[in-house]
Amino acid sequence: MESMKSKVGILGSGEVGRSLGSGLAAKGYDVELGSRTPDKKQIQDWLKSAVGRVSVGTFADAAAHGEILILCTLGEATENAIELAGTGNFDAKLVIDATNPLDFSKGMPPGLFVGTTDSLGERVQRLLPKAKVVKCFNTVNNKTMVNPRMKEGMPDMIICGNDEGAKREVAGLLKDLGWNEPIDIGGIEGARWLEAYTALWVRLALKLGNWSVAARFLRS
Amino acid sequence: MESMKSKVGILGSGEVGRSLGSGLAAKGYDVELGSRTPDKKQIQDWLKSAVGRVSVGTFADAAAHGEILILCTLGEATENAIELAGTGNFDAKLVIDATNPLDFSKGMPPGLFVGTTDSLGERVQRLLPKAKVVKCFNTVNNKTMVNPRMKEGMPDMIICGNDEGAKREVAGLLKDLGWNEPIDIGGIEGARWLEAYTALWVRLALKLGNWSVAARFLRS
Repeated sequence: MESMKSKVGILGSGEVGRSLGSGLAAKGYDVELGSRTPDKKQIQDWLKSAVGRVSVGTFADAAAHGEILILCTLGEATENAIELAGTGNFDAKLVIDATNPLDFSKGMPPGLFVGTTDSLGERVQRLLPKAKVVKCFNTVNNKTMVNPRMKEGMPDMIICGNDEGAKREVAGLLKDLGWNEPIDIGGIEGARWLEAYTALWVRLALKLGNWSVAARFLRS
Repeated sequence: MESMKSKVGILGSGEVGRSLGSGLAAKGYDVELGSRTPDKKQIQDWLKSAVGRVSVGTFADAAAHGEILILCTLGEATENAIELAGTGNFDAKLVIDATNPLDFSKGMPPGLFVGTTDSLGERVQRLLPKAKVVKCFNTVNNKTMVNPRMKEGMPDMIICGNDEGAKREVAGLLKDLGWNEPIDIGGIEGARWLEAYTALWVRLALKLGNWSVAARFLRS
Protein backbone atom coordinates (compact mmCIF):
# COMPACT_ATOMS: atom_id res chain seq x y z
CA MET A 1 0.00 0.00 0.00
CA GLU A 2 1.50 3.33 -1.09
CA SER A 3 1.14 6.32 1.20
CA MET A 4 -1.01 9.29 0.11
CA LYS A 5 0.84 11.52 -2.29
CA SER A 6 0.09 14.91 -3.82
CA LYS A 7 -2.57 15.63 -6.42
CA VAL A 8 -0.96 15.96 -9.84
CA GLY A 9 -2.43 17.67 -12.91
CA ILE A 10 -0.86 16.73 -16.22
CA LEU A 11 -1.32 18.99 -19.23
CA GLY A 12 -0.96 17.03 -22.42
CA SER A 13 -2.22 13.52 -23.10
CA GLY A 14 0.40 12.29 -25.56
CA GLU A 15 2.87 9.52 -24.75
CA VAL A 16 4.75 11.65 -22.22
CA GLY A 17 1.65 12.66 -20.30
CA ARG A 18 0.21 9.15 -20.29
CA SER A 19 3.53 7.55 -19.21
CA LEU A 20 4.09 10.00 -16.37
CA GLY A 21 0.40 9.78 -15.40
CA SER A 22 0.43 5.98 -15.15
CA GLY A 23 3.76 5.98 -13.37
CA LEU A 24 2.76 8.54 -10.77
CA ALA A 25 -0.68 6.99 -10.18
CA ALA A 26 0.98 3.62 -9.60
CA LYS A 27 3.12 5.31 -6.92
CA GLY A 28 0.10 6.70 -5.06
CA TYR A 29 -0.29 10.13 -6.63
CA ASP A 30 -3.84 11.29 -7.48
CA VAL A 31 -3.51 12.11 -11.17
CA GLU A 32 -5.77 14.02 -13.55
CA LEU A 33 -4.74 13.95 -17.20
CA GLY A 34 -5.74 17.14 -19.05
CA SER A 35 -6.38 17.12 -22.78
CA ARG A 36 -7.87 19.22 -25.56
CA THR A 37 -9.92 16.10 -26.36
CA PRO A 38 -10.55 14.20 -23.12
CA ASP A 39 -13.24 12.03 -24.76
CA LYS A 40 -10.84 10.59 -27.34
CA LYS A 41 -10.68 6.80 -27.28
CA GLN A 42 -6.91 6.69 -26.62
CA ILE A 43 -7.38 8.76 -23.47
CA GLN A 44 -10.41 6.85 -22.25
CA ASP A 45 -8.44 3.62 -22.83
CA TRP A 46 -5.61 5.04 -20.72
CA LEU A 47 -8.12 5.88 -17.97
CA LYS A 48 -9.36 2.27 -17.92
CA SER A 49 -5.89 0.73 -17.93
CA ALA A 50 -4.15 2.97 -15.38
CA VAL A 51 -3.72 1.66 -11.83
CA GLY A 52 -4.53 3.99 -8.92
CA ARG A 53 -6.38 7.27 -8.57
CA VAL A 54 -6.75 8.63 -12.10
CA SER A 55 -9.15 10.93 -13.91
CA VAL A 56 -9.24 12.83 -17.20
CA GLY A 57 -10.54 16.30 -18.03
CA THR A 58 -9.80 19.52 -19.86
CA PHE A 59 -6.56 21.43 -19.39
CA ALA A 60 -8.43 23.69 -16.97
CA ASP A 61 -9.81 20.70 -15.02
CA ALA A 62 -6.37 19.14 -14.65
CA ALA A 63 -4.75 22.47 -13.73
CA ALA A 64 -7.37 23.08 -11.02
CA HIS A 65 -6.99 19.51 -9.72
CA GLY A 66 -3.23 19.44 -9.30
CA GLU A 67 -1.13 20.69 -6.41
CA ILE A 68 1.74 19.81 -8.74
CA LEU A 69 1.28 20.50 -12.46
CA ILE A 70 3.30 18.86 -15.22
CA LEU A 71 3.54 20.35 -18.71
CA CYS A 72 3.71 17.53 -21.27
CA THR A 73 2.41 19.35 -24.33
CA LEU A 74 4.10 19.68 -27.70
CA GLY A 75 6.60 22.51 -27.47
CA GLU A 76 4.81 24.82 -29.88
CA ALA A 77 1.46 24.18 -28.16
CA THR A 78 2.67 24.79 -24.60
CA GLU A 79 1.94 28.48 -24.16
CA ASN A 80 -1.54 28.11 -25.66
CA ALA A 81 -2.25 25.14 -23.38
CA ILE A 82 -1.32 27.25 -20.34
CA GLU A 83 -3.69 29.99 -21.49
CA LEU A 84 -6.48 27.42 -21.99
CA ALA A 85 -5.82 26.01 -18.52
CA GLY A 86 -6.06 29.50 -16.96
CA THR A 87 -2.84 31.02 -15.70
CA GLY A 88 -4.37 31.59 -12.23
CA ASN A 89 -4.53 27.80 -11.78
CA PHE A 90 -0.71 27.73 -11.68
CA ASP A 91 -0.18 30.36 -8.99
CA ALA A 92 2.14 29.31 -6.16
CA LYS A 93 2.28 25.72 -7.47
CA LEU A 94 5.20 23.60 -8.51
CA VAL A 95 5.06 23.42 -12.32
CA ILE A 96 7.25 20.73 -13.85
CA ASP A 97 8.09 21.62 -17.43
CA ALA A 98 8.79 18.50 -19.49
CA THR A 99 8.38 20.21 -22.87
CA ASN A 100 10.86 20.80 -25.68
CA PRO A 101 10.82 23.72 -28.14
CA LEU A 102 11.47 21.47 -31.11
CA ASP A 103 11.16 23.03 -34.54
CA PHE A 104 10.16 20.49 -37.18
CA SER A 105 9.51 23.14 -39.85
CA LYS A 106 12.56 21.93 -41.77
CA GLY A 107 11.76 18.23 -41.20
CA MET A 108 13.69 15.68 -39.16
CA PRO A 109 15.82 15.91 -37.15
CA PRO A 110 14.45 19.02 -35.47
CA GLY A 111 15.98 22.37 -34.51
CA LEU A 112 14.83 24.67 -31.70
CA PHE A 113 12.49 27.64 -32.02
CA VAL A 114 14.13 29.51 -29.11
CA GLY A 115 17.86 29.81 -30.01
CA THR A 116 20.31 29.84 -27.09
CA THR A 117 19.43 33.13 -25.42
CA ASP A 118 15.95 32.02 -24.38
CA SER A 119 14.16 28.74 -23.68
CA LEU A 120 10.67 27.37 -23.41
CA GLY A 121 11.29 26.86 -19.69
CA GLU A 122 11.96 30.59 -19.27
CA ARG A 123 8.97 31.47 -21.42
CA VAL A 124 6.74 29.33 -19.20
CA GLN A 125 8.19 30.96 -16.07
CA ARG A 126 7.59 34.44 -17.56
CA LEU A 127 4.02 33.47 -18.45
CA LEU A 128 3.49 32.17 -14.91
CA PRO A 129 5.45 34.53 -12.64
CA LYS A 130 3.74 33.21 -9.50
CA ALA A 131 4.47 29.56 -10.27
CA LYS A 132 7.61 27.66 -9.34
CA VAL A 133 8.74 26.20 -12.66
CA VAL A 134 11.24 23.33 -12.68
CA LYS A 135 12.56 21.91 -15.95
CA CYS A 136 12.60 18.11 -15.70
CA PHE A 137 11.99 14.98 -17.79
CA ASN A 138 12.63 16.76 -21.11
CA THR A 139 15.96 15.01 -21.66
CA VAL A 140 14.68 11.42 -21.70
CA ASN A 141 12.20 9.37 -23.66
CA ASN A 142 8.78 8.79 -22.10
CA LYS A 143 9.59 5.10 -21.69
CA THR A 144 12.56 6.04 -19.53
CA MET A 145 10.69 8.45 -17.24
CA VAL A 146 9.31 5.77 -14.94
CA ASN A 147 11.58 3.02 -13.54
CA PRO A 148 14.58 4.33 -15.48
CA ARG A 149 17.18 1.73 -14.53
CA MET A 150 18.70 0.13 -17.62
CA LYS A 151 20.83 -3.01 -17.95
CA GLU A 152 23.90 -0.84 -18.56
CA GLY A 153 23.23 1.32 -15.51
CA MET A 154 21.22 4.22 -14.17
CA PRO A 155 20.75 7.31 -16.34
CA ASP A 156 20.93 10.78 -14.79
CA MET A 157 18.12 13.32 -14.70
CA ILE A 158 19.10 16.98 -14.95
CA ILE A 159 16.80 19.68 -13.60
CA CYS A 160 16.81 23.45 -13.19
CA GLY A 161 14.55 26.12 -11.77
CA ASN A 162 14.55 29.23 -9.61
CA ASP A 163 12.92 27.82 -6.46
CA GLU A 164 15.01 25.57 -4.19
CA GLY A 165 11.99 24.09 -2.40
CA ALA A 166 10.30 23.24 -5.68
CA LYS A 167 13.43 21.46 -6.86
CA ARG A 168 13.55 19.42 -3.65
CA GLU A 169 9.93 18.45 -4.26
CA VAL A 170 10.84 17.34 -7.78
CA ALA A 171 13.72 15.28 -6.38
CA GLY A 172 11.20 13.50 -4.14
CA LEU A 173 8.86 12.81 -7.04
CA LEU A 174 11.78 11.52 -9.11
CA LYS A 175 12.76 9.20 -6.26
CA ASP A 176 9.22 7.80 -6.23
CA LEU A 177 9.60 7.04 -9.95
CA GLY A 178 12.88 5.21 -9.37
CA TRP A 179 15.45 7.91 -10.14
CA ASN A 180 18.60 8.78 -8.25
CA GLU A 181 19.09 12.32 -6.94
CA PRO A 182 18.88 14.61 -9.98
CA ILE A 183 21.68 16.96 -11.05
CA ASP A 184 20.49 20.53 -10.45
CA ILE A 185 22.25 22.95 -12.81
CA GLY A 186 20.76 26.13 -11.29
CA GLY A 187 18.12 28.64 -12.39
CA ILE A 188 15.49 28.17 -15.06
CA GLU A 189 17.78 29.74 -17.68
CA GLY A 190 19.57 26.38 -17.67
CA ALA A 191 16.59 25.15 -19.71
CA ARG A 192 18.37 26.63 -22.75
CA TRP A 193 20.89 23.82 -22.56
CA LEU A 194 18.56 21.05 -21.43
CA GLU A 195 16.35 21.83 -24.41
CA ALA A 196 19.31 22.07 -26.82
CA TYR A 197 20.51 18.73 -25.44
CA THR A 198 17.25 17.18 -26.61
CA ALA A 199 18.07 18.13 -30.20
CA LEU A 200 21.32 16.17 -29.75
CA TRP A 201 19.50 13.29 -28.05
CA VAL A 202 17.10 12.96 -31.01
CA ARG A 203 20.09 12.66 -33.34
CA LEU A 204 21.73 10.03 -31.10
CA ALA A 205 18.48 8.07 -30.96
CA LEU A 206 18.05 8.21 -34.75
CA LYS A 207 21.67 7.18 -35.31
CA LEU A 208 21.54 4.30 -32.82
CA GLY A 209 18.02 3.28 -33.84
CA ASN A 210 17.13 3.30 -30.15
CA TRP A 211 14.72 5.75 -28.53
CA SER A 212 15.64 4.49 -25.07
CA VAL A 213 19.15 5.97 -25.19
CA ALA A 214 19.76 7.97 -22.02
CA ALA A 215 22.84 9.71 -20.66
CA ARG A 216 24.75 8.73 -17.57
CA PHE A 217 27.31 11.30 -16.52
CA LEU A 218 30.43 9.42 -15.43
CA ARG A 219 32.27 11.21 -12.66
CA SER A 220 35.31 9.09 -11.83
CA MET B 1 57.31 0.07 -30.64
CA GLU B 2 54.42 1.92 -32.23
CA SER B 3 53.97 1.75 -35.99
CA MET B 4 54.37 4.92 -38.08
CA LYS B 5 51.30 7.09 -37.97
CA SER B 6 50.24 10.22 -39.82
CA LYS B 7 51.75 13.66 -39.36
CA VAL B 8 49.46 15.79 -37.22
CA GLY B 9 49.41 19.58 -36.99
CA ILE B 10 47.69 21.02 -33.93
CA LEU B 11 46.51 24.63 -33.97
CA GLY B 12 46.32 25.97 -30.44
CA SER B 13 48.76 25.31 -27.61
CA GLY B 14 46.42 25.50 -24.62
CA GLU B 15 45.54 22.51 -22.45
CA VAL B 16 43.53 20.83 -25.22
CA GLY B 17 46.28 21.14 -27.81
CA ARG B 18 49.00 20.00 -25.44
CA SER B 19 46.95 17.02 -24.15
CA LEU B 20 46.08 15.80 -27.62
CA GLY B 21 49.62 16.46 -28.81
CA SER B 22 51.21 14.40 -26.04
CA GLY B 23 48.63 11.66 -26.40
CA LEU B 24 49.04 11.34 -30.16
CA ALA B 25 52.84 11.55 -30.05
CA ALA B 26 52.88 8.75 -27.46
CA LYS B 27 50.87 6.63 -29.92
CA GLY B 28 53.37 7.15 -32.75
CA TYR B 29 51.94 10.20 -34.52
CA ASP B 30 54.43 12.87 -35.66
CA VAL B 31 53.01 15.97 -33.99
CA GLU B 32 53.71 19.67 -34.50
CA LEU B 33 52.06 22.02 -32.04
CA GLY B 34 51.24 25.41 -33.57
CA SER B 35 51.02 28.53 -31.47
CA ARG B 36 50.89 32.31 -31.72
CA THR B 37 53.82 32.23 -29.27
CA PRO B 38 55.88 29.08 -29.91
CA ASP B 39 58.79 30.40 -27.82
CA LYS B 40 56.71 30.67 -24.65
CA LYS B 41 58.13 28.71 -21.71
CA GLN B 42 54.97 26.59 -21.24
CA ILE B 43 55.22 25.38 -24.84
CA GLN B 44 58.96 24.76 -24.72
CA ASP B 45 58.40 22.81 -21.47
CA TRP B 46 55.77 20.72 -23.24
CA LEU B 47 58.22 20.05 -26.06
CA LYS B 48 60.82 18.75 -23.59
CA SER B 49 58.38 16.57 -21.66
CA ALA B 50 56.45 15.01 -24.55
CA VAL B 51 57.37 11.46 -25.60
CA GLY B 52 57.75 10.69 -29.31
CA ARG B 53 58.12 12.78 -32.46
CA VAL B 54 57.13 16.32 -31.47
CA SER B 55 57.91 19.84 -32.63
CA VAL B 56 56.52 23.33 -32.13
CA GLY B 57 56.04 26.20 -34.55
CA THR B 58 53.69 28.86 -35.80
CA PHE B 59 50.13 28.10 -36.87
CA ALA B 60 51.38 28.12 -40.46
CA ASP B 61 54.24 25.72 -39.62
CA ALA B 62 51.90 23.27 -37.91
CA ALA B 63 49.31 23.52 -40.68
CA ALA B 64 51.95 22.82 -43.33
CA HIS B 65 53.35 19.91 -41.28
CA GLY B 66 50.14 18.01 -40.69
CA GLU B 67 48.39 15.53 -42.95
CA ILE B 68 45.72 15.70 -40.27
CA LEU B 69 45.05 19.11 -38.65
CA ILE B 70 43.33 19.58 -35.29
CA LEU B 71 41.77 22.90 -34.27
CA CYS B 72 42.23 23.41 -30.51
CA THR B 73 41.98 27.20 -30.36
CA LEU B 74 39.64 29.25 -28.21
CA GLY B 75 36.28 29.43 -29.99
CA GLU B 76 36.44 33.14 -30.70
CA ALA B 77 40.04 32.89 -31.96
CA THR B 78 39.46 29.97 -34.33
CA GLU B 79 38.69 31.73 -37.58
CA ASN B 80 41.60 34.13 -37.14
CA ALA B 81 43.93 31.21 -36.38
CA ILE B 82 42.88 29.54 -39.64
CA GLU B 83 43.62 32.72 -41.57
CA LEU B 84 47.04 32.99 -39.89
CA ALA B 85 47.77 29.36 -40.75
CA GLY B 86 46.90 29.95 -44.39
CA THR B 87 43.67 28.41 -45.68
CA GLY B 88 45.52 26.67 -48.52
CA ASN B 89 47.34 24.54 -45.92
CA PHE B 90 44.00 22.86 -45.11
CA ASP B 91 43.02 21.86 -48.64
CA ALA B 92 41.99 18.21 -49.04
CA LYS B 93 43.08 17.42 -45.47
CA LEU B 94 41.15 15.97 -42.56
CA VAL B 95 40.52 18.87 -40.16
CA ILE B 96 39.36 17.82 -36.71
CA ASP B 97 37.50 20.67 -35.06
CA ALA B 98 37.70 20.43 -31.25
CA THR B 99 36.65 24.04 -30.63
CA ASN B 100 33.62 25.47 -28.84
CA PRO B 101 31.94 28.81 -29.61
CA LEU B 102 31.65 29.73 -25.95
CA ASP B 103 30.55 33.26 -25.15
CA PHE B 104 31.94 34.46 -21.81
CA SER B 105 30.85 38.08 -22.37
CA LYS B 106 28.22 37.68 -19.63
CA GLY B 107 30.59 35.78 -17.31
CA MET B 108 30.38 32.17 -16.18
CA PRO B 109 28.81 29.85 -17.10
CA PRO B 110 29.09 30.65 -20.81
CA GLY B 111 26.57 30.91 -23.63
CA LEU B 112 27.22 30.35 -27.34
CA PHE B 113 28.02 33.00 -29.93
CA VAL B 114 26.42 31.03 -32.76
CA GLY B 115 22.80 30.32 -31.69
CA THR B 116 21.23 27.08 -32.93
CA THR B 117 20.99 27.78 -36.66
CA ASP B 118 24.76 27.87 -37.17
CA SER B 119 27.84 26.47 -35.46
CA LEU B 120 31.55 27.02 -35.32
CA GLY B 121 31.99 23.65 -37.03
CA GLU B 122 29.96 24.88 -40.00
CA ARG B 123 31.80 28.21 -40.04
CA VAL B 124 35.12 26.36 -40.21
CA GLN B 125 33.83 24.15 -43.03
CA ARG B 126 32.62 27.24 -44.94
CA LEU B 127 36.00 28.93 -44.43
CA LEU B 128 37.76 25.78 -45.66
CA PRO B 129 35.53 24.41 -48.44
CA LYS B 130 38.23 22.04 -49.68
CA ALA B 131 38.94 20.55 -46.25
CA LYS B 132 37.14 17.61 -44.68
CA VAL B 133 36.04 18.98 -41.31
CA VAL B 134 35.00 16.55 -38.56
CA LYS B 135 33.73 17.83 -35.22
CA CYS B 136 35.28 15.75 -32.45
CA PHE B 137 36.68 16.08 -28.90
CA ASN B 138 34.68 19.24 -28.14
CA THR B 139 32.32 17.44 -25.74
CA VAL B 140 34.93 16.24 -23.23
CA ASN B 141 37.57 17.77 -21.01
CA ASN B 142 41.17 17.70 -22.24
CA LYS B 143 42.05 15.23 -19.48
CA THR B 144 39.48 12.81 -20.89
CA MET B 145 40.64 13.01 -24.51
CA VAL B 146 43.46 10.49 -24.12
CA ASN B 147 42.87 7.13 -22.38
CA PRO B 148 39.27 8.04 -21.58
CA ARG B 149 38.21 4.95 -19.61
CA MET B 150 36.87 5.91 -16.18
CA LYS B 151 36.22 3.74 -13.13
CA GLU B 152 32.49 4.02 -13.76
CA GLY B 153 32.84 3.00 -17.41
CA MET B 154 33.69 4.22 -20.86
CA PRO B 155 32.38 7.59 -22.03
CA ASP B 156 31.13 8.04 -25.59
CA MET B 157 32.59 10.37 -28.20
CA ILE B 158 30.16 11.95 -30.64
CA ILE B 159 31.38 13.18 -34.02
CA CYS B 160 29.88 14.71 -37.16
CA GLY B 161 31.09 15.85 -40.55
CA ASN B 162 30.27 15.71 -44.24
CA ASP B 163 32.97 13.27 -45.42
CA GLU B 164 32.54 9.59 -44.61
CA GLY B 165 36.19 8.72 -45.21
CA ALA B 166 37.34 11.53 -42.93
CA LYS B 167 35.05 10.26 -40.18
CA ARG B 168 36.45 6.76 -40.53
CA GLU B 169 39.94 8.23 -40.19
CA VAL B 170 38.85 10.03 -37.01
CA ALA B 171 37.45 6.77 -35.66
CA GLY B 172 40.89 5.19 -36.17
CA LEU B 173 42.64 8.06 -34.40
CA LEU B 174 40.14 7.79 -31.54
CA LYS B 175 40.83 4.07 -31.27
CA ASP B 176 44.55 4.82 -30.96
CA LEU B 177 43.73 7.15 -28.06
CA GLY B 178 41.69 4.47 -26.27
CA TRP B 179 38.15 5.31 -27.36
CA ASN B 180 35.39 2.99 -28.48
CA GLU B 181 33.80 3.53 -31.89
CA PRO B 182 32.37 7.09 -31.87
CA ILE B 183 28.71 7.88 -32.44
CA ASP B 184 28.42 9.66 -35.79
CA ILE B 185 25.36 11.93 -35.85
CA GLY B 186 25.69 12.93 -39.52
CA GLY B 187 26.75 16.09 -41.35
CA ILE B 188 28.73 19.00 -39.95
CA GLU B 189 25.49 20.84 -39.08
CA GLY B 190 25.28 18.44 -36.11
CA ALA B 191 28.00 20.65 -34.58
CA ARG B 192 25.17 22.98 -33.52
CA TRP B 193 24.13 20.41 -30.93
CA LEU B 194 27.58 19.14 -29.97
CA GLU B 195 28.58 22.74 -29.24
CA ALA B 196 25.35 23.48 -27.34
CA TYR B 197 25.94 20.29 -25.34
CA THR B 198 29.24 21.76 -24.15
CA ALA B 199 27.36 24.64 -22.54
CA LEU B 200 25.38 22.00 -20.61
CA TRP B 201 28.53 20.04 -19.80
CA VAL B 202 30.18 23.14 -18.29
CA ARG B 203 27.17 23.56 -16.00
CA LEU B 204 27.26 19.88 -14.98
CA ALA B 205 30.98 20.14 -14.24
CA LEU B 206 30.50 23.29 -12.16
CA LYS B 207 27.61 21.73 -10.25
CA LEU B 208 29.42 18.46 -9.59
CA GLY B 209 32.75 20.19 -8.93
CA ASN B 210 34.30 17.75 -11.36
CA TRP B 211 35.77 18.68 -14.75
CA SER B 212 36.21 15.03 -15.66
CA VAL B 213 32.47 14.40 -15.96
CA ALA B 214 31.78 12.69 -19.31
CA ALA B 215 28.62 11.23 -20.80
CA ARG B 216 27.99 7.61 -21.53
CA PHE B 217 24.87 6.99 -23.59
CA LEU B 218 23.13 3.95 -22.14
CA ARG B 219 21.34 1.94 -24.81
CA SER B 220 19.73 -1.02 -23.02
